[in-house]
Amino acid sequence: MQDTPIHPAVDPVALAGLATERAAHIVEHLNDAPFEEAVALVAYLPYAKAVEAFDQPELRRAGDLLEAQSKTLALSLLRDMSADRAVDTLHELGPRESAALLDALEPETGAALRALLAYPKDTAGALMTTEFVAIPATATVAETLAHIRDVERTRETIYAICILDPHTKGLVQTLSLRRLIMGAPEALALSLALPQDPITVAPLTDREEVARLVSVHDLLAVPVIDERRRVLGIVTVDDVIDAIVAESTEDVQRFGGVEATNEPYLQIGFLSMIRKRAGWLSVLFLSEMLTASAMQHFADELQKAVVLTLFIPLIMSSGGNSGSQATSLLIRALALGQLRLRDWWRVALRELPTGIVLGGLLGAIGVARITAWQYLGIYDYGPHWVLIATTVAAGLVGIVTFGSLAGSMLPFILKRLGFDPASASAPFVATLVDVTGLVIYFSVAYAILRGTLL
Amino acid sequence: MQDTPIHPAVDPVALAGLATERAAHIVEHLNDAPFEEAVALVAYLPYAKAVEAFDQPELRRAGDLLEAQSKTLALSLLRDMSADRAVDTLHELGPRESAALLDALEPETGAALRALLAYPKDTAGALMTTEFVAIPATATVAETLAHIRDVERTRETIYAICILDPHTKGLVQTLSLRRLIMGAPEALALSLALPQDPITVAPLTDREEVARLVSVHDLLAVPVIDERRRVLGIVTVDDVIDAIVAESTEDVQRFGGVEATNEPYLQIGFLSMIRKRAGWLSVLFLSEMLTASAMQHFADELQKAVVLTLFIPLIMSSGGNSGSQATSLLIRALALGQLRLRDWWRVALRELPTGIVLGGLLGAIGVARITAWQYLGIYDYGPHWVLIATTVAAGLVGIVTFGSLAGSMLPFILKRLGFDPASASAPFVATLVDVTGLVIYFSVAYAILRGTLL
Repeated sequence: MQDTPIHPAVDPVALAGLATERAAHIVEHLNDAPFEEAVALVAYLPYAKAVEAFDQPELRRAGDLLEAQSKTLALSLLRDMSADRAVDTLHELGPRESAALLDALEPETGAALRALLAYPKDTAGALMTTEFVAIPATATVAETLAHIRDVERTRETIYAICILDPHTKGLVQTLSLRRLIMGAPEALALSLALPQDPITVAPLTDREEVARLVSVHDLLAVPVIDERRRVLGIVTVDDVIDAIVAESTEDVQRFGGVEATNEPYLQIGFLSMIRKRAGWLSVLFLSEMLTASAMQHFADELQKAVVLTLFIPLIMSSGGNSGSQATSLLIRALALGQLRLRDWWRVALRELPTGIVLGGLLGAIGVARITAWQYLGIYDYGPHWVLIATTVAAGLVGIVTFGSLAGSMLPFILKRLGFDPASASAPFVATLVDVTGLVIYFSVAYAILRGTLL
Repeated sequence: MQDTPIHPAVDPVALAGLATERAAHIVEHLNDAPFEEAVALVAYLPYAKAVEAFDQPELRRAGDLLEAQSKTLALSLLRDMSADRAVDTLHELGPRESAALLDALEPETGAALRALLAYPKDTAGALMTTEFVAIPATATVAETLAHIRDVERTRETIYAICILDPHTKGLVQTLSLRRLIMGAPEALALSLALPQDPITVAPLTDREEVARLVSVHDLLAVPVIDERRRVLGIVTVDDVIDAIVAESTEDVQRFGGVEATNEPYLQIGFLSMIRKRAGWLSVLFLSEMLTASAMQHFADELQKAVVLTLFIPLIMSSGGNSGSQATSLLIRALALGQLRLRDWWRVALRELPTGIVLGGLLGAIGVARITAWQYLGIYDYGPHWVLIATTVAAGLVGIVTFGSLAGSMLPFILKRLGFDPASASAPFVATLVDVTGLVIYFSVAYAILRGTLL
């Protein structure tokens, strides 16, 4: 007999099954369910499971789902989910809705969340959680373990322990749980730490740098400290993985020339999709208009030698392709810290011969093709076909070299100007190379064909 | 007074400083040092530090550095470094050198490494380490902690504990160290585990799927089991991060049209760099030659209306750009599991209107430009300029729509054929769209301009 009627949108059997599922599966179910049903499910799930679900960054519509709950439940969830996720969820709400919830919380919790909300997206401050284990430098192993057992449920990770100066509260060391449990109960926890300065980040450190440190030093968490070495929070390895995956999605999308988004493809509204693509597409279109201007400039030559136009798409695309290759190599080399800004000339010195060789290779293929078509009678390039083949080959060498150089230097220039080198996109490089490529091609043609065709 | 002379390549002061550094910094130093010096440094470093350095996947030339050591030191390092790194290092050596080292090891260690060597690159088997903590289901918390204290030094991670059936040795549960230390000493360790089936992978599971599971479920390690549920090894979170970073590098590079490489840019030899780029560049060039064929096909029209050629680069690049946008969105959506193969038609139904709207937008800009240039007297497109503007606009709608459709379907087609959808590159999409784009443009021109210009 069912006494408390369940919301009509919720299937009681599915609900019962869900209550014992892993958080990740509950999240998947909530994400796939219609909004009405998801709202009801959150309300009817065992409370601890609902908290776990909100703790997953994979939960979509978290802001809307929270807002649709009763105010008591919403506040309670906000209080019990990890601080970094609470902040993400509040970010999804409008400023007014978010302020209303914060005002209704206990002043202490509200103030802590407000402080976190102030950190810009993609910084350590926005990634960190304020729930970590900290002990004074005077604590023994036994005391530390007892403290951990006390607070375990409310801390996002207990694998990294911050050891603080008892007076200044500044960070002295970090200690892994692994090393802690190896110690004798009466030993000082501090005595078990590695004899090296702890690795820390500032609240405004970029998430990419946080990820690099965690990855290079194989950390499970990294403390975020202020200029007085007080611990503001810690960034845990699972948040770092999420950041790396999000960063990688954004890098591929930006490289493809789309405004970066972490929303799933089918969830992006039609207008929002148009907006994310139209901006760059229009900018590229406007820049590419310079090709029409360049062509107009050479209109007389074109009229005299229409045969030259046959190879324009071929030659231009080769420049764009070699540029996009170089850019993709350099974006990653800069992101992984393999190269610094001052290494630009070493890269230029490598790309120059690389471009010449690659352009020469394509030029040879191009000459072979023109010769073959001429001899096999597939197409007649006219009496000056040898000169035309030479023009195509010389143009390819010039354009591929320029493409490789421009494509490899663009990420450096962006970095120098303070932008993310990964905002260099393949379409952008192609456009850059197209305009210059046309000028190179026609200049080469003019030099080689003057007096004959031109 | 220095009794044992140090190798001339090694600065004794630098060596002394290095001996107390973090593994990551030692690795950086070894990577930057000339090979001779790096070889000598490995030999003179405190042995434990040398092992730590070899345990870092960031160590470059690990195979060569190992081979250049005395056989005793090389074997000892191979024995003491984590099994997964030993396998990576052996992979770097030739089959003969690797076999010689394996034969010289104790039969048991040699056999274990040989088994690991057999797993294909990029699988869970190749990522896993065989050094993990396993206890029988009958062990208490106190016994488990005592066991962990015994083996801590030789295990890569102790944060995930495998609980085995005492008879079949099959995996029953996994338990985190966090939950373990919360338990009463006399309680069964098994009783502390979460009441869910443990998350496991097979040795041949792709590393991308391992990374997805670790990221979604916030795991610190995932056991690799065979079909009889025996634990072959575990993949730890730091190896997963390295795998995600490597995968992300490969994705960006392949999207840029380069053969994927995880070697740092400046370490890639000149010939190797040419090889990684020449292949795709030549394939793209050969395909793009179809544009020349298409142009030759329309040579008569071109001769009659050279004005049409002015817009070829502009229109073709717009098709390539919209294609590259769609491809980058779909590559990530498929990689993150947001879309399945059977969703292709839903994507096509979204890209069709998106392409039409975006093409219409660019078409409007194009018409505005031609009209402005005509009225301002910057360029004279002839008496039929209105028809030419119409041709450009209609061509753009057709080509951008085709680009969006082709770009979004390509990752699906690659996945259907069993390839990684991320092997779709921006240059490849652009080439695909260029050839078709030309045909679309000339067909539109023929339809609109027949009887006037053509």
